[in-house]
Amino acid sequence: MTSFPSKGRLLYEGKAKRIYATDNSDELLVEYKNSLTAFNALKKDTLEGKGELNNKISSCLFKYLADNGVENHWVRQVDDIHQVVRSMTIIPVEVIVRNIATGSLVKRLGVQDGLKLAFPLVEYCYKSDELGDPLIIHDHAVLFGWADDEQLNQIKAICLEVNRLLANLFDRLGIILVDFKLEFGLDSRGRLMLADEVSPDTCRFWDKETMAKLDKDRFRQDLGDVLGAYREIWARLQRHFGI
Amino acid sequence: MTSFPSKGRLLYEGKAKRIYATDNSDELLVEYKNSLTAFNALKKDTLEGKGELNNKISSCLFKYLADNGVENHWVRQVDDIHQVVRSMTIIPVEVIVRNIATGSLVKRLGVQDGLKLAFPLVEYCYKSDELGDPLIIHDHAVLFGWADDEQLNQIKAICLEVNRLLANLFDRLGIILVDFKLEFGLDSRGRLMLADEVSPDTCRFWDKETMAKLDKDRFRQDLGDVLGAYREIWARLQRHFGI
Repeated sequence: MTSFPSKGRLLYEGKAKRIYATDNSDELLVEYKNSLTAFNALKKDTLEGKGELNNKISSCLFKYLADNGVENHWVRQVDDIHQVVRSMTIIPVEVIVRNIATGSLVKRLGVQDGLKLAFPLVEYCYKSDELGDPLIIHDHAVLFGWADDEQLNQIKAICLEVNRLLANLFDRLGIILVDFKLEFGLDSRGRLMLADEVSPDTCRFWDKETMAKLDKDRFRQDLGDVLGAYREIWARLQRHFGI
Repeated sequence: MTSFPSKGRLLYEGKAKRIYATDNSDELLVEYKNSLTAFNALKKDTLEGKGELNNKISSCLFKYLADNGVENHWVRQVDDIHQVVRSMTIIPVEVIVRNIATGSLVKRLGVQDGLKLAFPLVEYCYKSDELGDPLIIHDHAVLFGWADDEQLNQIKAICLEVNRLLANLFDRLGIILVDFKLEFGLDSRGRLMLADEVSPDTCRFWDKETMAKLDKDRFRQDLGDVLGAYREIWARLQRHFGI
């Protein structure tokens, strides 16, 4: 924890975060909200304490990734619900990395739910609430100017490295990393970097012993005790890192 | 035209074709139907003479492709609505090649209708009426066993060569090849080969002068004179090839 930066103008409000300007033009202040949304915001709720848990989990995971060579936008956590990140121009391509088939993949392609994939699957979606974040291929992004060839190759390589690092970490916590969503941006010098958040809002975590879901699927599927699952992820990270 | 082969058991009836066994286990008889369907068969109609035109156009284009080095399943046309093809195991991946953005691409990604693409776009869809032929990426096909890596690379190369050959041919007929759908199969010896049909049911053709649509979009969009458009394609091919 460090001194709280000036909270400037609200630049953007998303489904789970608010982004504020700071005195430093290279840095932004991110406020993690308690709101939970699913199915492109058709389902909504508020969960007291969710923002705090995601801020802490995301800070912890971004630090772990940076310590292991994956540069990202996270700078520091400043209090329970705020973190400072580097100012980035977000690339409008979301990446989903999957180790096990579930969720939208199963619905879309009719494949077996829970199928362990022979290799990690990297999918791109065009970031557009209006269009429902449609699946795209590499060449769509290139042709329509959302990212260039080199950026996409770099993004894919980073995603596979993040998957390796996080799957390894969570395995040691007794958790299967099923899939997760990442976003990328370019900093003021044009450097491509991991951005957004890494939390139970954006990852699927299954307990290795009980196969219990410890992520936003508890909200999507009305499984109950959503906050308990997020707390469990944070507790295991705290134990592991001695935080 | 050659002798009519024995018309054996009906093996398969699709939206636009019936496939029959013949005395030769390596060959099938394809009957081109007059039915027209769109939007995954939600819209249907029958058009007297459509089957004959597509049989003739497809025969002509398959012969042109074979003459230019693209091996395919077509063997010979036997009468107005029948052609003989090699027996194939169809790979459940449809390929769409696009030179201009229109149709489902525009709806899905919100890009400009009529946009000329900087390079030909090759998209794969999983062939499943039930799922609405969803867009897939290369790795989906590999992971779920619909085609292997080498087959997909071969398919992509053939598609780009077919696009080059057909766009060139149609350009000489005063027609823009906007996009088209191809299917592939494996023959009894496991050789990968272009299959299905190439016709105004499966291609988008725009007149270079008037930009008039000369394909199934006339049916999809209720533009009228559907058969006239198919006849126009056939007439220009006849003139060009002196048939």
